[in-house]
Amino acid sequence: MFFMRECVKSGHYFKIGSVSKKYSIIASVLETPKIGEVTEVKGWVKSLRVQKEFIFADVNDGSCAQKLQIVIPKNLPIDDNLTYGSSVHITGKLSKSPRGQLELIADNINVLGKCVILDGYPFNPRTVHPPEYIRKFLHLRSRTNYIAAILRVRHAVTTHIHNYFAKKNYIHIHTPILTSNDCEGAGEVFKVQPENNETIKAMMQEGKNRDSVYFGTKTYLTVSGQLHLEAICRGMGDVYTLGPTFRAENSRSRLHLSEFYMLEAEIAFCDSMEKLQKVIEDLLKYIFIETRNTNEADLFLIDKSNKTPDWLNKQFVTLPYDEARNVLCAKGLDVTEEGINKEQELTLVDHCQAPVFIVQWPKNLKSFYMKESSFDNSKVDALDLLAPLTGEIVGGSLREDNYEKLKAKLPSDALNWYLELRKFGNIPTGGFGLGLERILQVLCNIPNIKDTLPFPRWPHNCDM
Amino acid sequence: MFFMRECVKSGHYFKIGSVSKKYSIIASVLETPKIGEVTEVKGWVKSLRVQKEFIFADVNDGSCAQKLQIVIPKNLPIDDNLTYGSSVHITGKLSKSPRGQLELIADNINVLGKCVILDGYPFNPRTVHPPEYIRKFLHLRSRTNYIAAILRVRHAVTTHIHNYFAKKNYIHIHTPILTSNDCEGAGEVFKVQPENNETIKAMMQEGKNRDSVYFGTKTYLTVSGQLHLEAICRGMGDVYTLGPTFRAENSRSRLHLSEFYMLEAEIAFCDSMEKLQKVIEDLLKYIFIETRNTNEADLFLIDKSNKTPDWLNKQFVTLPYDEARNVLCAKGLDVTEEGINKEQELTLVDHCQAPVFIVQWPKNLKSFYMKESSFDNSKVDALDLLAPLTGEIVGGSLREDNYEKLKAKLPSDALNWYLELRKFGNIPTGGFGLGLERILQVLCNIPNIKDTLPFPRWPHNCDM
Repeated sequence: MFFMRECVKSGHYFKIGSVSKKYSIIASVLETPKIGEVTEVKGWVKSLRVQKEFIFADVNDGSCAQKLQIVIPKNLPIDDNLTYGSSVHITGKLSKSPRGQLELIADNINVLGKCVILDGYPFNPRTVHPPEYIRKFLHLRSRTNYIAAILRVRHAVTTHIHNYFAKKNYIHIHTPILTSNDCEGAGEVFKVQPENNETIKAMMQEGKNRDSVYFGTKTYLTVSGQLHLEAICRGMGDVYTLGPTFRAENSRSRLHLSEFYMLEAEIAFCDSMEKLQKVIEDLLKYIFIETRNTNEADLFLIDKSNKTPDWLNKQFVTLPYDEARNVLCAKGLDVTEEGINKEQELTLVDHCQAPVFIVQWPKNLKSFYMKESSFDNSKVDALDLLAPLTGEIVGGSLREDNYEKLKAKLPSDALNWYLELRKFGNIPTGGFGLGLERILQVLCNIPNIKDTLPFPRWPHNCDM
Repeated sequence: MFFMRECVKSGHYFKIGSVSKKYSIIASVLETPKIGEVTEVKGWVKSLRVQKEFIFADVNDGSCAQKLQIVIPKNLPIDDNLTYGSSVHITGKLSKSPRGQLELIADNINVLGKCVILDGYPFNPRTVHPPEYIRKFLHLRSRTNYIAAILRVRHAVTTHIHNYFAKKNYIHIHTPILTSNDCEGAGEVFKVQPENNETIKAMMQEGKNRDSVYFGTKTYLTVSGQLHLEAICRGMGDVYTLGPTFRAENSRSRLHLSEFYMLEAEIAFCDSMEKLQKVIEDLLKYIFIETRNTNEADLFLIDKSNKTPDWLNKQFVTLPYDEARNVLCAKGLDVTEEGINKEQELTLVDHCQAPVFIVQWPKNLKSFYMKESSFDNSKVDALDLLAPLTGEIVGGSLREDNYEKLKAKLPSDALNWYLELRKFGNIPTGGFGLGLERILQVLCNIPNIKDTLPFPRWPHNCDM
């Protein structure tokens, strides 16, 4: 082709395929150590010990929990900037120490970026900083072992979730973040409008207020993708979504965020609670077992006392709402009309020594779309799954598939589209939502939900 | 355990493991057909042909592009509601027709949900509805072959993207949707605040305006996760994100959405454009090749004329900005100070007969964080990748890693955290952003971007 030749002639066309990564990530070096081979690594110095003939540096590059020990002979030219926190490029020979530890004997060490603690670097070597302190430095905190390990586990858990659903032939759907539905009863919402007044002016139409100008309707951040999933499920079968959802609540507990991730699945042709519960229990056990296999070192780095929970080998307990109330009552805890509270949730989990499905909920405590029970029309076929540490981690239900019953409970005409799903080629479906951050709390033993994701947002906090 | 026995006694404890799916998805039936075996399927009737002794129904369940032909002997009891669009549960024996076509000879057919076209169902059998028409019925459109096929391809593409980065040891990071950064120069933003006035009143503090009450700062929907990725990259190495981003622009082209998905990757220790370009070219070719392997039938369903693009076997072309301008100039097209426009982008692609990297951009046309070229300080090490049909599909750059140079260009004090990333253990990085929907347009030949995702949002449109 003429033009390509032209490019080659003028020297601007180069062979992309010839560029490759020369250095190794530390995870690979540790996985298949090639003793005696020249090896290049790049990463950050996590600690330094100066001894008589050698300097020992522990270097990590974020690819795994472990550090690689670098042995630096003192006769090498050494940059003054080689300190804790600095970024380095090291070439050397891989070797085993007398004690059998893998180490890299450096031939060359190059400091890429210095790190002067006195210039304001907030972390110190060989110090375990409390999470509340680390959280003040969101932009730097992925450099701490604690947060880096959590983010690797978070990545692993999302991967296992996608793998689980791929095996079961579910289709991954990107449900929308912006929505004109505000009435799912799932909590308070954020509204959205353009920042730029010029845009609003230019788009203004008679009879519209500011809030509705851009989209033609008031627009909110999603609180759940479920209703949208149900629409797709009725054309494509089993589907799921894993994405951000939002609550504009003024709650500052260790269990709440303004922006968090939900896994939601909608199961086609699902006509029994047993089937729904089976999917949830299978999925949860799969996530826990797989992540313990793939990220054991990270789990220990996050919490040394982490161990396989007993309940992984047990069946989850199923408890009707009324019986749960009796259990709590017998312990002197009164369930009000608002339902089971957080303390009571944890009491039930403790009582059962396993995750508990609370089923057969009173209709008035649950959302309009939940299916009326066939054996008691004051109840709905809904479930909450309660787990240790966090209480509720999953909510789910069969969906009301009777057109007339749904119509009677529909909270707004804006949801007529949802009703219409039942009119044409309708099928029974059921589904659930699982809070990703709470799963991470239970799996890793993370007391505060703000440490389960890279950039937490909660009331008065939206840094960066 | 006492309590569990109690549950068993009261009949509320059931064996979860015993429930399993009895029917088969059509994708599995077609993949490994078990001729002669009793088979159950569930799905929707896509067409019906009544003949002398049999009714022929084509049934699809969303699991694949293909339909399964059902042969219904007329002596079976047949529900009047068995029509186009109805949902059905069929049991029968798998067989091969005289012509060798796989078919299911029905023993039993059960209509789960009727579909009466006269009641307002917008689609008709054996009719190819234009996408503009289908788009009016967002809640029902996944029942059309066109949209279902696109959503399967979208799922496949995201899976291939995750697989690509998993192989390369990148860590998947959930960058935030809510952000207090508004000044990346990437376009107009949406602002976010609680809908509930009571919440705002309760949280109001002296000196704050409404916009800032909830988070303590004005808060926007993200236009890019890049700056956040850069923070994580400097603790954990190679990272990427794949999630929704937003633009509050009043543009209604076939290439723009208010909410769309971006894949963004940040490459640690990346110090050359060649390396950056290699990753982009490899990734794109991987996506195209893998998706053509996994979803060939879907690609044909979307566009019968779809074929493997010639450029998959070619090196992408690289063209410095100034040369691109000369090429356009020679064709009588003038490049203004605002840069290359859409028509000119497509002209360049056509001229090169392949995707083109435009490199060596004038500094004033690009963002503050892009690295000043070492050979010409009026230029930055940035790239746009132009592709057929859509023009720009990827934008990327090396990042300015010189503290002083970055400080001089920093557009706002709110980004001091970003500057500080260069202060402690800094490393060279480079990265790019790729529009998922535009990739789908090129891959599938989809003229309008609104058909590449399940629930498109654009000015005056935020249905559901």
